[in-house]
Amino acid sequence: MELEEAMEKHLRPVLAAHSEKGEFPFEAFSKVVADVKMLSDERLFADKTAENYVHSQYYNTYLYYVMARFDVSIATFMAVHAGLGYYTFLFGGSDEQKAKWLPKFQSFDLQTCFALTEPDHGSDIAGGLATSAKRDGDKWILNGEKRWIGGAGSADLIPVFARDIEDNKIKCFVVKKGQAGLRVDKIENKIGLRMVQNGHIYLEDVEVLESDRLPHINGFRDVANILYATRAIIGVLAAGNSGGAYRAALSYTSQRVQFGKKLTNFQLVQEKLARIVSNLQSQLAVNARVADLQTEGQYDEVRSSIAKMQNSKLMRENAALAREICGGNGIVYEYDVARFFTDAEAIYTYEGTHEVNSLVIGRAITGESAFV
Amino acid sequence: MELEEAMEKHLRPVLAAHSEKGEFPFEAFSKVVADVKMLSDERLFADKTAENYVHSQYYNTYLYYVMARFDVSIATFMAVHAGLGYYTFLFGGSDEQKAKWLPKFQSFDLQTCFALTEPDHGSDIAGGLATSAKRDGDKWILNGEKRWIGGAGSADLIPVFARDIEDNKIKCFVVKKGQAGLRVDKIENKIGLRMVQNGHIYLEDVEVLESDRLPHINGFRDVANILYATRAIIGVLAAGNSGGAYRAALSYTSQRVQFGKKLTNFQLVQEKLARIVSNLQSQLAVNARVADLQTEGQYDEVRSSIAKMQNSKLMRENAALAREICGGNGIVYEYDVARFFTDAEAIYTYEGTHEVNSLVIGRAITGESAFV
Amino acid sequence: MELEEAMEKHLRPVLAAHSEKGEFPFEAFSKVVADVKMLSDERLFADKTAENYVHSQYYNTYLYYVMARFDVSIATFMAVHAGLGYYTFLFGGSDEQKAKWLPKFQSFDLQTCFALTEPDHGSDIAGGLATSAKRDGDKWILNGEKRWIGGAGSADLIPVFARDIEDNKIKCFVVKKGQAGLRVDKIENKIGLRMVQNGHIYLEDVEVLESDRLPHINGFRDVANILYATRAIIGVLAAGNSGGAYRAALSYTSQRVQFGKKLTNFQLVQEKLARIVSNLQSQLAVNARVADLQTEGQYDEVRSSIAKMQNSKLMRENAALAREICGGNGIVYEYDVARFFTDAEAIYTYEGTHEVNSLVIGRAITGESAFV
Amino acid sequence: MELEEAMEKHLRPVLAAHSEKGEFPFEAFSKVVADVKMLSDERLFADKTAENYVHSQYYNTYLYYVMARFDVSIATFMAVHAGLGYYTFLFGGSDEQKAKWLPKFQSFDLQTCFALTEPDHGSDIAGGLATSAKRDGDKWILNGEKRWIGGAGSADLIPVFARDIEDNKIKCFVVKKGQAGLRVDKIENKIGLRMVQNGHIYLEDVEVLESDRLPHINGFRDVANILYATRAIIGVLAAGNSGGAYRAALSYTSQRVQFGKKLTNFQLVQEKLARIVSNLQSQLAVNARVADLQTEGQYDEVRSSIAKMQNSKLMRENAALAREICGGNGIVYEYDVARFFTDAEAIYTYEGTHEVNSLVIGRAITGESAFV
Repeated sequence: MELEEAMEKHLRPVLAAHSEKGEFPFEAFSKVVADVKMLSDERLFADKTAENYVHSQYYNTYLYYVMARFDVSIATFMAVHAGLGYYTFLFGGSDEQKAKWLPKFQSFDLQTCFALTEPDHGSDIAGGLATSAKRDGDKWILNGEKRWIGGAGSADLIPVFARDIEDNKIKCFVVKKGQAGLRVDKIENKIGLRMVQNGHIYLEDVEVLESDRLPHINGFRDVANILYATRAIIGVLAAGNSGGAYRAALSYTSQRVQFGKKLTNFQLVQEKLARIVSNLQSQLAVNARVADLQTEGQYDEVRSSIAKMQNSKLMRENAALAREICGGNGIVYEYDVARFFTDAEAIYTYEGTHEVNSLVIGRAITGESAFV
Repeated sequence: MELEEAMEKHLRPVLAAHSEKGEFPFEAFSKVVADVKMLSDERLFADKTAENYVHSQYYNTYLYYVMARFDVSIATFMAVHAGLGYYTFLFGGSDEQKAKWLPKFQSFDLQTCFALTEPDHGSDIAGGLATSAKRDGDKWILNGEKRWIGGAGSADLIPVFARDIEDNKIKCFVVKKGQAGLRVDKIENKIGLRMVQNGHIYLEDVEVLESDRLPHINGFRDVANILYATRAIIGVLAAGNSGGAYRAALSYTSQRVQFGKKLTNFQLVQEKLARIVSNLQSQLAVNARVADLQTEGQYDEVRSSIAKMQNSKLMRENAALAREICGGNGIVYEYDVARFFTDAEAIYTYEGTHEVNSLVIGRAITGESAFV
Repeated sequence: MELEEAMEKHLRPVLAAHSEKGEFPFEAFSKVVADVKMLSDERLFADKTAENYVHSQYYNTYLYYVMARFDVSIATFMAVHAGLGYYTFLFGGSDEQKAKWLPKFQSFDLQTCFALTEPDHGSDIAGGLATSAKRDGDKWILNGEKRWIGGAGSADLIPVFARDIEDNKIKCFVVKKGQAGLRVDKIENKIGLRMVQNGHIYLEDVEVLESDRLPHINGFRDVANILYATRAIIGVLAAGNSGGAYRAALSYTSQRVQFGKKLTNFQLVQEKLARIVSNLQSQLAVNARVADLQTEGQYDEVRSSIAKMQNSKLMRENAALAREICGGNGIVYEYDVARFFTDAEAIYTYEGTHEVNSLVIGRAITGESAFV
Repeated sequence: MELEEAMEKHLRPVLAAHSEKGEFPFEAFSKVVADVKMLSDERLFADKTAENYVHSQYYNTYLYYVMARFDVSIATFMAVHAGLGYYTFLFGGSDEQKAKWLPKFQSFDLQTCFALTEPDHGSDIAGGLATSAKRDGDKWILNGEKRWIGGAGSADLIPVFARDIEDNKIKCFVVKKGQAGLRVDKIENKIGLRMVQNGHIYLEDVEVLESDRLPHINGFRDVANILYATRAIIGVLAAGNSGGAYRAALSYTSQRVQFGKKLTNFQLVQEKLARIVSNLQSQLAVNARVADLQTEGQYDEVRSSIAKMQNSKLMRENAALAREICGGNGIVYEYDVARFFTDAEAIYTYEGTHEVNSLVIGRAITGESAFV
């Protein structure tokens, strides 16, 4: 079944209620995975260093766009599992680890996530990571807190980034669901991405075997590679949010009658729809360009920041325009546009705020760091 | 007790939970009413044609600003009861009706609301009102639907606007809680003003005695007077929303540390705070000017539209700025700013959308109607 | 010589003075033409229906971007001559006419332009064209006025669009420099594109032989084809303007010291530079996408409007950001950014205003015309 | 004669030509001064410490608004002479100096200006002032450069701020027209405020008698008082610019016909006019509030920054909106709107850029300086 068709079939009926309750629709999502071949296509999980990487960029761009246009919580859950989480194992794991776990991630038999951000360290995680790892024979003892970890509550394997107190380097440890010393609280009362269950993680003397440490992650540079590989997807999610908001607003204004005419008949409505669609075209053009850059091997951190910053900025403008032309009905979940509007705020912020990305870009073009 | 102090005492502890659940905190609100003399001051309910009207404008401006800066749902509930609803009885009622009901509204012993908007008629309610009233001896039979009616679920008296099928004029009928033929459904799944319970009202052969009709409402002009009298309050609520968002953002960024410094140390954060505070100053200046105009008897529909449109526009910009500098914590209710951000969307839309207000103003300054 | 190098050599020394005086630097421009092979490359003037059209799009995109990044008046002069004017002859001319004139346009031995817009008809030229053509034996008599005709003062051949009073169709007539009844006044006192000499043309009983009428232009549809073929170039000019403004602002802020630090050291400056460069990336991505669409044969009027509207909107934002970070020196021509800032206004308006493009796009996506 | 009437009579005929040439219309301005009593009213030049200061704020606000709404170059010339320059002598002069010069400034028999800004020090003038003053017996020797000094070319008396090399304090010296060692070059090629002749001043061993030093200026704090007293006027000029742009745009769109209807008939035009007028109302409300604050003695540097920043921001938005709805004719001086558009950039920048004002405000509200 086509991805969009499957989502309409399985997820549509449960969307508003799950958004309102703030719960992820696991059951419906499993049915989508079962029905859609595209979600088990190898290109989705391709090794970026391998031959087929080239085509996988366009593939990913398409898949995530369609997914996010339907719902950004679903797409974010996916980006965390198949993006951040999967790449952590792919880039950081030993051959044995990869052989053991990657296929199960690909089949969704095991779910993973990405435990990096901390309560006191969001944007400055590179310098500020406080979770500690202490070597003790053939195992490590982890202590600390993680916050905003998407999918943490349900994840089978949680890759936790911690600072080795010995050499002060950031390393990555695979913590398992229900392990002693691990507690995952759900962050409640969110206004956006309500179906994504973000976890606040407490680690108290959690033990991880050396064999469950991902050996190829040794410092923040390795973490950054995972982040900016995924940041390309976030630019796609931003475009998808705009695509969804556009469809919702066009659909609503095409049916709503005021002053005896359909809203789409009014210049003030058409101008806003035109602005949305023009912004959207440039978001899609940026995504295409990013996929080209990845293909050409010229994609890097700065370019990932530019794409994320620009697509997020236009997304936010689009979300506001789409919401406002839906009037009062634009603030209830039933008409979809409200969901895209509030979700936009989460995307605008996560994986690099506007401020942080602008200083990353600014540093590259001026040669001066203005972070502090 | 001071209004702000009382709200902090009684309402603060229940805010996040009620916002999340979408319920109005009636019990806590009653305690505020009991503790705060200001809420039973006669100026709050002053007759705009009487002598003391002059001072009541500044009084109202102050009261609603303080209230909205704390929470816009609470202030909206108040503006519906003591503004739209109260003015309907004040402007439209006979002397007997006013003597009977106004004191009970003033003491909050009876709650009222304002049932004008319909599912198919929001902005074009003047020409499009579809709820009908048919005279039948000494009573009237009402049929139709109303939507988005704030406080309808709990109101004791619902003033319903309906079109007299005889002379086609809009008249106003007092419907009582629990009356036969009346059904009020709560509108669920809202992203903003979640504590305001908006009702979807169904009227099926509801009977109202002629003596419960408000005799001084005879046509849309009379309704418009109520609307633009209240619109001055909405401009204040917009400023209040900005005041609340500003305080929340300043408080958060003053405590949050990133890159080893408080967020308030960063130029990018200061510039946004400065933009918010500058916008806020001009919102407050507009409110003061509106109160002057009311005092001078020069306030009219066009000026009400200008104030609402301008303060709402700046409110929206402020809400976005305040939310974004709070990062991830800006999307959870605990830190307040998320609530102001989503509430802003409701204020931006209700009591005249940006589009409708701009065409009201445009008609006045160009002499041409561009509505259709 | 490279195009950029030649422009720096010949045009740079005369730019500020010619901008201030409002005169086109014909002599310096001729030297650029003489030195740069690229300007006589056949791809620049390729027939869009022919095989080599495909590659010519990318060629044109590159050439016009580089040219506009240096100066938009120069690029506009070029777009009028080699775009609008040349396409008029290419699409509208007979084989004999093309054989006679096209090579001379390609070699710049003859200069042409495009006389469509009228004093009372800008955006509504399709329905409103008032210049008349009356057949009289083997010639035509033209009467009317044209306004804003770029390059009209110096053009050797002016293709004038007029309405045949017989069949009411728009036809095109080649009027020659200095012809009896033709007067071309220079439009003075412009704030933008000051070096482009826009003409106000008066036609009083101007005679044109039937053999100098372009036979393949018979109605507004044929004119529209010329317009939207050129509109792709305007999107490139908008990006070029941003590229130029960016370079000027980066150069200035990299040298200017305030508070003991280079301006590029300040967060507030970096954020604006980052916003410019992010907008610019998406403008370039849109241009690339347009060239793709042309190559794929999927480019049409609506897509041309989207690209023009979006790139112009971002150009205007970029121009304002670039100008403001240059402070007081941002308002004098010497530092370049002032020129890009004021030129942006002309580009924002010509070849389809924001309003007209938004209604063209709105009509396409809603199926409803909201022009009147 | 009324101020507006006199400006229309004397200045209107010479505006476009002088803007284009970049020259101040001294002759026409003198006629305005001669005809308008308001310009010699004592309130215009009132001592802010005296009784009548209170009323003078409202007087100034009105006068400068009317003047700037007509033309901002004229109003700026006035603000430099009667504001910055006059206040320098008023606040800084001895009783003898005041008795000698103030009446002549009031009658416009002598013209003054304000020589503070330097080529390398704009925003950071407090710490960076490089012009030096060396005491030598009963006179001082000045050396250095000043830039952007409005009216310097024609001023009879130039108060020059210089750093006393002895005690490192900023002091103020009255330099006279044509004095040995003084050279004033006109800054050419400006895009905005073209009629204001800004001077680049070179001081080479210029001698000033101790008796021509203004004794009450001893440090940057004294200079700041002059600056923020004048900054209130700049907020008024920003509003005046918007008032002028609004009138020009309303006038143009009321006459211009497109698609068979006046432009004012179109929703897209009305919405922009409504946005302009709403912004303008809030600018005027801010000005009224500033005059109140001055009257109440609560006006200070931070409030001056807020008013300047906010009114300038809205001015810039208004200028862009007004210009764009005038289409192509919006870029030529004849239709006025172009002049207001480009002048807005100068106002946006002078007397405190957006960045500097935001950091002044930010410091006040956060308690942290983020300048460096």
